[in-house]
Amino acid sequence: MTSTALEVRLASRPSGWPTDENFEIAEVEVPTPGDGEILVRNVVMSVDPYMRGRMNDVKSYVPPFQVGAPLDGGAVGEVVTSNSPDFKPGDHVLHGLGWRDYAVVNAAHAVKVDGDLAPLSTYLGVLGMPGLTAYAGLLKLGQPRAGETVVVGAATGPVGSVVGQLARIHGARAVGVAGGPEKCRALVEELGFDAAVDRTAPGFASALAAACPRGVDVYFENVGGELLRAVLPLLNDFARIPLCGLVSNYSGSAKPTDPDRSAELLTTLLVKRVTLRGFVVSDFAAEEPAFRREMTEWLEAGRLRYREDLVDGLDAAPAALIGLLQGRNFGKVVVQVAPEDQAT
Amino acid sequence: MTSTALEVRLASRPSGWPTDENFEIAEVEVPTPGDGEILVRNVVMSVDPYMRGRMNDVKSYVPPFQVGAPLDGGAVGEVVTSNSPDFKPGDHVLHGLGWRDYAVVNAAHAVKVDGDLAPLSTYLGVLGMPGLTAYAGLLKLGQPRAGETVVVGAATGPVGSVVGQLARIHGARAVGVAGGPEKCRALVEELGFDAAVDRTAPGFASALAAACPRGVDVYFENVGGELLRAVLPLLNDFARIPLCGLVSNYSGSAKPTDPDRSAELLTTLLVKRVTLRGFVVSDFAAEEPAFRREMTEWLEAGRLRYREDLVDGLDAAPAALIGLLQGRNFGKVVVQVAPEDQAT
Repeated sequence: MTSTALEVRLASRPSGWPTDENFEIAEVEVPTPGDGEILVRNVVMSVDPYMRGRMNDVKSYVPPFQVGAPLDGGAVGEVVTSNSPDFKPGDHVLHGLGWRDYAVVNAAHAVKVDGDLAPLSTYLGVLGMPGLTAYAGLLKLGQPRAGETVVVGAATGPVGSVVGQLARIHGARAVGVAGGPEKCRALVEELGFDAAVDRTAPGFASALAAACPRGVDVYFENVGGELLRAVLPLLNDFARIPLCGLVSNYSGSAKPTDPDRSAELLTTLLVKRVTLRGFVVSDFAAEEPAFRREMTEWLEAGRLRYREDLVDGLDAAPAALIGLLQGRNFGKVVVQVAPEDQAT
Repeated sequence: MTSTALEVRLASRPSGWPTDENFEIAEVEVPTPGDGEILVRNVVMSVDPYMRGRMNDVKSYVPPFQVGAPLDGGAVGEVVTSNSPDFKPGDHVLHGLGWRDYAVVNAAHAVKVDGDLAPLSTYLGVLGMPGLTAYAGLLKLGQPRAGETVVVGAATGPVGSVVGQLARIHGARAVGVAGGPEKCRALVEELGFDAAVDRTAPGFASALAAACPRGVDVYFENVGGELLRAVLPLLNDFARIPLCGLVSNYSGSAKPTDPDRSAELLTTLLVKRVTLRGFVVSDFAAEEPAFRREMTEWLEAGRLRYREDLVDGLDAAPAALIGLLQGRNFGKVVVQVAPEDQAT
């Protein structure tokens, strides 16, 4: 084991899209775990849209990143040293201190995962936070019934792709929105969506309407902006909108000269008796056992597929986050921090 | 019985606030009921904010009024002639054909009401559609718990005044917003609200915040606009927003140059995990028996009070609707079309 390691720090807060300059890669001493702590060598780490919000200095459901300090987020690694009776060296754990080679983790904040049951990276995606977001938001809040229509944006992403496939498993029509013909083709051919609509093509709103001939019963909202505006006129009475993200707003792309759309939005929600509910995946921690059991079954039965966008090396993580926010990924973005097996 | 009668017609569609010119009072023959119909002499009729929406030519949850035809809406009257076994002359009925002296009503669309149990006008207010709107929206959707804070706008109106009092009955703190110091005083002194905030006073948003020291758990939305903006920062996590009206938008007072507030709205709903649900009173018809039983008990026990704003004569109805939309009423606006007892 080397005595130095890398971590990625927030160098400055972005305004609008983040750039390379907002990040700094620093060499640090490998930290030493205290009582009740474990030292983890990270193998894979997650890059997620919600991290953009944490780069701003605003109160939200997770605290902001601090300038000069390392970023954090979901990661899976191997226990190197354990000062806790719950873990031993060689165990694989899911924890919240990504963006660094080595992490000292409070044992109470680490969860053992089984790399033989599923690849370590899936605990960051289909079996992890994005999968639970899709599962809880669609099934607990959206509650699609057989024959209803479910629309989801960012549909090739790790949340959207699960939303559409779970809608199908429950007998609903799955309509995915994605950027570009290649992603749209994959939604239908690889992931089994009933229809896919290219948000970058001219006539997008009409194409979306044509893909939803019986209207929209569940709009799983993770995008906002233009997609929401295109969905509003298609909503059926008593539609449900689980709201877990607004990636189109994260970098403040709305212009102050845009007309006020809030009255139009509220009028639609009123007239069509829509239920819109904001949620955060951590509100559904109690669903996790059922989620992991059902998702594993569907994966093994081949009813659920996933795609990963693997990025090599911690130093590539900032660019991976920037690309993700601009929609350049296809599937779950995972950074391979280090090989899974390594002489420590 | 005279052979001619009056009806109020939509002369033209308003843009913005309606004016006298949008209405026309016409003399017509008293109509003759056909098979299964009853002729009703209207005694009282209702004037409600939702009627403004029906003056526009747009699809909504109720069809628009037609230019040249009489308006309609809730009314209570006395049966003059009955061609239905369900009604006899002298019965009092609640029905949907107000805005006229005499109405021919399909017997299936009339409901007998008891003028001895409660004044006829209450079936248009506290025991009628506005009361059920408050009851269903607050108790079924808002679900206030003891110790929580409920905010409602247009609080001296027939919906808002019931919302606040029902919140108190269920152990919650009731904060009402109204226009002017006189209405605010009445909210606290007559209707038992815990606090009242004058939306016309300078520093309104700070005053609202001060009236809600533990934040807002239920915002009963019937106003929109500035009030909603003042409430957003005060919402607690997991707040509920039953949405039954947007009276501030009904006359299109929003300017196209206003900045877009929809992203701010959605971000708040997401971060605070708010449930916003549009509803229409007719969705809760099944609640009507429980509603009428409970409300009557609370009225008799003196736990629930109401105030009416009685307007005399059918020809005063247009001005009553215009005044209502501008917030000039205090309590339920009821038009006395004719005396309750009259030689027919």
